[in-house]
Amino acid sequence: MLRHALARSSLSRGASGRLGHYYSRRQASQLAEPKQPEVVTSEIPGPQSKAALARLSKLQDTRAAVFACDYSKSVGNYIVDADGNQLLDLYCQIASIPVGYNNEALLKAAQSPEVASTLINRPALGVYPPKDWASVLEKAYMRVRPKGLDMVFTTAHGSDANELAYKAAFMHYARTKRGSAGFSAQEETSVMDNVPPGAPDVAILSFTSGFHGRTFGALSTTRSKAIHKLDIPAFRWPRAPFPQLRYPLDKFSEENSVEEQRCIAETERILDENEMPIAAVIVEPVQSEGGDRHASAHFFQELRRITHQRGVLLIVDEVQTGCGATGTFWAHEQWRLDTPPDMVTFSKKMQTAGFYHTQKMVPEQPLRNFNTWLGDPSRALVTSAIVDEVLAQDLVEQARVTGAYLKSHLVPLAIRYFRVFNSVRGEGTFLAFDCTSPELRAELLQLMRMEGVNMGGSGDVAVRFRPMLTLTKAHVNVFLTRFESVLNKLYQKHWPR
Amino acid sequence: MLRHALARSSLSRGASGRLGHYYSRRQASQLAEPKQPEVVTSEIPGPQSKAALARLSKLQDTRAAVFACDYSKSVGNYIVDADGNQLLDLYCQIASIPVGYNNEALLKAAQSPEVASTLINRPALGVYPPKDWASVLEKAYMRVRPKGLDMVFTTAHGSDANELAYKAAFMHYARTKRGSAGFSAQEETSVMDNVPPGAPDVAILSFTSGFHGRTFGALSTTRSKAIHKLDIPAFRWPRAPFPQLRYPLDKFSEENSVEEQRCIAETERILDENEMPIAAVIVEPVQSEGGDRHASAHFFQELRRITHQRGVLLIVDEVQTGCGATGTFWAHEQWRLDTPPDMVTFSKKMQTAGFYHTQKMVPEQPLRNFNTWLGDPSRALVTSAIVDEVLAQDLVEQARVTGAYLKSHLVPLAIRYFRVFNSVRGEGTFLAFDCTSPELRAELLQLMRMEGVNMGGSGDVAVRFRPMLTLTKAHVNVFLTRFESVLNKLYQKHWPR
Repeated sequence: MLRHALARSSLSRGASGRLGHYYSRRQASQLAEPKQPEVVTSEIPGPQSKAALARLSKLQDTRAAVFACDYSKSVGNYIVDADGNQLLDLYCQIASIPVGYNNEALLKAAQSPEVASTLINRPALGVYPPKDWASVLEKAYMRVRPKGLDMVFTTAHGSDANELAYKAAFMHYARTKRGSAGFSAQEETSVMDNVPPGAPDVAILSFTSGFHGRTFGALSTTRSKAIHKLDIPAFRWPRAPFPQLRYPLDKFSEENSVEEQRCIAETERILDENEMPIAAVIVEPVQSEGGDRHASAHFFQELRRITHQRGVLLIVDEVQTGCGATGTFWAHEQWRLDTPPDMVTFSKKMQTAGFYHTQKMVPEQPLRNFNTWLGDPSRALVTSAIVDEVLAQDLVEQARVTGAYLKSHLVPLAIRYFRVFNSVRGEGTFLAFDCTSPELRAELLQLMRMEGVNMGGSGDVAVRFRPMLTLTKAHVNVFLTRFESVLNKLYQKHWPR
Repeated sequence: MLRHALARSSLSRGASGRLGHYYSRRQASQLAEPKQPEVVTSEIPGPQSKAALARLSKLQDTRAAVFACDYSKSVGNYIVDADGNQLLDLYCQIASIPVGYNNEALLKAAQSPEVASTLINRPALGVYPPKDWASVLEKAYMRVRPKGLDMVFTTAHGSDANELAYKAAFMHYARTKRGSAGFSAQEETSVMDNVPPGAPDVAILSFTSGFHGRTFGALSTTRSKAIHKLDIPAFRWPRAPFPQLRYPLDKFSEENSVEEQRCIAETERILDENEMPIAAVIVEPVQSEGGDRHASAHFFQELRRITHQRGVLLIVDEVQTGCGATGTFWAHEQWRLDTPPDMVTFSKKMQTAGFYHTQKMVPEQPLRNFNTWLGDPSRALVTSAIVDEVLAQDLVEQARVTGAYLKSHLVPLAIRYFRVFNSVRGEGTFLAFDCTSPELRAELLQLMRMEGVNMGGSGDVAVRFRPMLTLTKAHVNVFLTRFESVLNKLYQKHWPR
């Protein structure tokens, strides 16, 4: 199973880092992306990874760790582990790397005095904002803002981005209901005991299989897997059915349309009949952790229509889909909505998190949707450099084109190797397929790793592509070669002729 | 009211930054801390601050902003605003600055290749940890770990640190109850609908006036002010009374002891009789947002005793009290507990967040208490440099000594100016006093700002000292001069002879 690449890459020659020392800036700029993967250990994690993880396990839970990384040697689309294995990375820190490891433009930004200043003088952005914070927001977030949303609430990660959006929704709901009346004495008293009317029973409606994070409010809307939720108290918020479509979507358009209509009708019924009033609906453009489940633009148009009709807010969770991988900067652009979503949340490739909104979502009183740091300006400056790269190099278009190329090869492979995988789906490089069993998926992922390609799963049987936007057809060709090799190994093992 | 300092400080001479340009490293090392405050505008925020905030208000809610800052010119204990006002900072980004603005050692760390690497190659720490992550954890967190707790869960901010501790508590509670049995089918099904038994009705008990953050789980334990909680759904978790003590503590020790015993007895009653079972109790060593409310070591010893007796976990929230300001690195060290707390949460001066714990708090299955990033290694590297500074310069001892000096002057001033303030309290520099009315507090804070001292309030009438650990007696003297001047102005205005 071990594969020794014939040629040692320029990376291996160029970076002679000593242990405990990272690259200098000069060294980093000399790093070149490998031409192909190289696996030098007989298993992954190899001995150095295992030693690092064993040491770490005394301090943190390492049972989910795949291997320990040498980020100083990772370049572009290739991640290098502690043993020197260099893997084409199609998972990218759970979709968090947008423009390549050790990207030179990002390195330059990270080494700027502005970043150093915000790292050592951590501001409480809502109380003592840096004088140029507006221009950082412009460059990092507003240049790529979703149409119709002209403000941005900044925070730390996807889970609290969603929670802050929920809080905005609940405050908006209460204001709409309350009208010009102030808080009642009963509200002010009861809220300190966590009971209505001050702490009201109001809901966020989410969809079956959706994932919106793991803090308590977010987790109450997450419906991905039991293991994500077991033993944790949850708000008794309802869930609506998300369409269970058949792929390829165009082939099954008729029955898929019926399924989507069923889900919209049921969602309408819940909005109208749910005992607890619903302030907002949250939905992912692609249910990512839930197994890369898709719905059509029409479904989302209908969802916008039925929420708008009822004055229920629509929150689009673009934590995983945002920042270009689907072939548009925000996946929901592809829905071509008449009325924009009320809030769009983001994180992952955007490096910090937050939600876009309009003035309507700002509470009447200050300090209500608030916290000490309100995000991280150091990370925002890196985001600004990322957006520079994405726009200057037209990387969203590159993701669209490269993804189409990858998909065009996956579709026939799924026919040829139907015993291993099916249901190729997605847009841009935000692609996925289903394996025919969870066990086969685990085997495939491990074999791919030993072939030098790092991939990740989602849901019960899906394998998801979450490459960087810098993925090219050349990388796809490297992947396809290794993938076919693994598919043949699986066939030889499980279905020998 | 405007005060023009006679001498222009070395800061004003040294830093000739152009707009949009920050210091270079050479320039930063030339910056010296001002000898005294200097206020150059007739009001704060001044015209430049107002312009920056007006621009920012188009993108974010700025109603809580005090002024816009020029962090490039802020040095040591002095913050400089967009208009060039240089203020002695005793609030420090809501207690988030430990060792001074533009600290040189921190600057060096922030400009290291390691920080740049983690900024541009953001790792999913639970899946692909950097090979040296264990040693970063050692240097940033384990060197200063609370006695008895040998693991650390890293995350983004105080609110999610508390929530992750709550999740650990709930999983521990369920495991204890479940014994060796696995999850039942009913649990796995019901949890997807957010109902028991999968999503059980279990509680975290918190105290009246406590503050533990603003995400949904944290907010359900926060009991500071109605405005923090109104309109947001909350778990029906109980609250226990926190002692309402009279200050100075030694003068009223007898009646305070009765009050504490009452609160302990009531807490015991809730632990035993609350309808919803209680998995953990969370408490702050000093209720910080709630108005700097204190209790004695004996109270906390009793709290540990009654929780330990019942197998209820004790979580100590050191988000604001941690990192030295109380005269010990962790405030709860001063309780001298026989049995350590089960978890200690931290954030603010520590730059990122997390909780310390033991192996007992690690769930049986991986990926349960989990998220994508699990903290921020760039910030952790800065934390490591902070801990270096704190230990090398013995800054915890400095905070203890400087705080005692400050308190020794505040106590007689409170007697002399009793119409303005009273109830001086606290340890180290983690001090506070109460103003005699909310209006007087607002007036005092604004006058102090115009005298060149930036301070913050908490609760309804408290003014809290949250200086850096680098505060010296010389800074205290600067403060005292300005403070007396303001006190005299307030007397002249409100109680003229």
